[in-house]
Amino acid sequence: MKPETNIILIGAGNVATQLGLALSDAGYKISQVYSKTKSSSSVLAKKLKTESITDLKKLAQDASIYIIAVKDDAIRDVAAQLKLGNKIVVHTSGSVSINALKKVSTNYGVIYPLQTFTKGKSLNFKNVPLCIEGSNKSTSTTLQYFAKSVSSNVQQVDSDQRKVIHLAAVFACNFSNHMYTIAEEIMKKNKLSFGLLKPLIEETASKIKNNSPTEAQTGPAARGDKKVMKEHLKMLKNKDIKEIYKTLSNQIMKTASANKPA
Amino acid sequence: MKPETNIILIGAGNVATQLGLALSDAGYKISQVYSKTKSSSSVLAKKLKTESITDLKKLAQDASIYIIAVKDDAIRDVAAQLKLGNKIVVHTSGSVSINALKKVSTNYGVIYPLQTFTKGKSLNFKNVPLCIEGSNKSTSTTLQYFAKSVSSNVQQVDSDQRKVIHLAAVFACNFSNHMYTIAEEIMKKNKLSFGLLKPLIEETASKIKNNSPTEAQTGPAARGDKKVMKEHLKMLKNKDIKEIYKTLSNQIMKTASANKPA
Repeated sequence: MKPETNIILIGAGNVATQLGLALSDAGYKISQVYSKTKSSSSVLAKKLKTESITDLKKLAQDASIYIIAVKDDAIRDVAAQLKLGNKIVVHTSGSVSINALKKVSTNYGVIYPLQTFTKGKSLNFKNVPLCIEGSNKSTSTTLQYFAKSVSSNVQQVDSDQRKVIHLAAVFACNFSNHMYTIAEEIMKKNKLSFGLLKPLIEETASKIKNNSPTEAQTGPAARGDKKVMKEHLKMLKNKDIKEIYKTLSNQIMKTASANKPA
Repeated sequence: MKPETNIILIGAGNVATQLGLALSDAGYKISQVYSKTKSSSSVLAKKLKTESITDLKKLAQDASIYIIAVKDDAIRDVAAQLKLGNKIVVHTSGSVSINALKKVSTNYGVIYPLQTFTKGKSLNFKNVPLCIEGSNKSTSTTLQYFAKSVSSNVQQVDSDQRKVIHLAAVFACNFSNHMYTIAEEIMKKNKLSFGLLKPLIEETASKIKNNSPTEAQTGPAARGDKKVMKEHLKMLKNKDIKEIYKTLSNQIMKTASANKPA
């Protein structure tokens, strides 16, 4: 399919940007970038040296693959405005069913990049797991081939599995990041530098490369140190944070006792 | 002080092991390793090519620095059995006050390595922040010099500050690791590989090197996507995990709205 494959990007946020750059690096031609916001669309179009549009009616009909990388709750709106015959159209969401695109084309699917993308922070797209799903055999095969040209980690995953992965990702990414946020608040409130904790955060994430996180668990709750936990609860003045400390410590103690060798 | 400085390690767990190896690499002589468990003590003593003891009465009295690296709740027990005159004695705990060592020597202190140590996983000790505290000026100066010979990140921190850092570390390390545990359980229960989430976990931790975690927050709660959160709660059957999902999502929504530009 490469390099004659023309791609159109619908969306110009973090996912569209990183995916667009990776595709462009891999030699694909991005023929248009759409965003309802002119500034977003033109910033990305400039990066990809392509045309920027803000009206879906101006969408070229001759691309091979249309990638809808907009916010989850905007996918159905965008899909309702598209009729693409038998062109391949995919969305990139973890939580939206493949069926959201059923009326857009006979060949539709999903390419869900299992990664957190930050504005201005580039990453090696080759390492981003891509969870793909096609509405039929030939679309799946095309998407598999297509995804493999930008990532070395491509998985066929159905919509139910993808929802589970997305849920697990909320814990692995969004909730662990919130733990960093609370740690930062505690440090700041006491005029201590959050930077001091960065090697610890890095090592905690690095540990699970070769250890199950259940086995890697350390800390007062894991060793059932009630004295320290009681002191920590006394130190926490914010009642929400106190509640989080209690709930998570209890849960860690439960997990630890369930996994203790008999 | 180097290399004539003789060090005795009291404790043979993960902290004692990593610290002992780092000190040995830096050219210090470890003259004894104590553990009440013979196997632990002799394993570490062998690594450090030194004497292993299991009775505190056999502790040599001629070392320059005694490092008590035992579990938090064992520090006072060990301290009660030691009389070390004016030799420097330190513990390595984040949550125990420097005063636990008051009766052991006139020169006491703390070297708290702000890191999570795993059996069998080595790490570059140079990057481990060492929070130090001395009972007097000269002890502080000696500990500062001593700590700097194994780590490039040495901070003078008093007992109250150290307790705050330890509390923040519980969120940054122990609780974020528990988020990984829950993610692993969700994946396993659905016969999906936890490995798929590893690049995401790595990137989430890597992001905060240059971004505040408050700004780096993504996910359904951060964008107030109630539809997805409702679906996730429906998917979670375990009532504890459901509760954690709810509590953390609410907290993320609160933080997000507090940090929204007016």
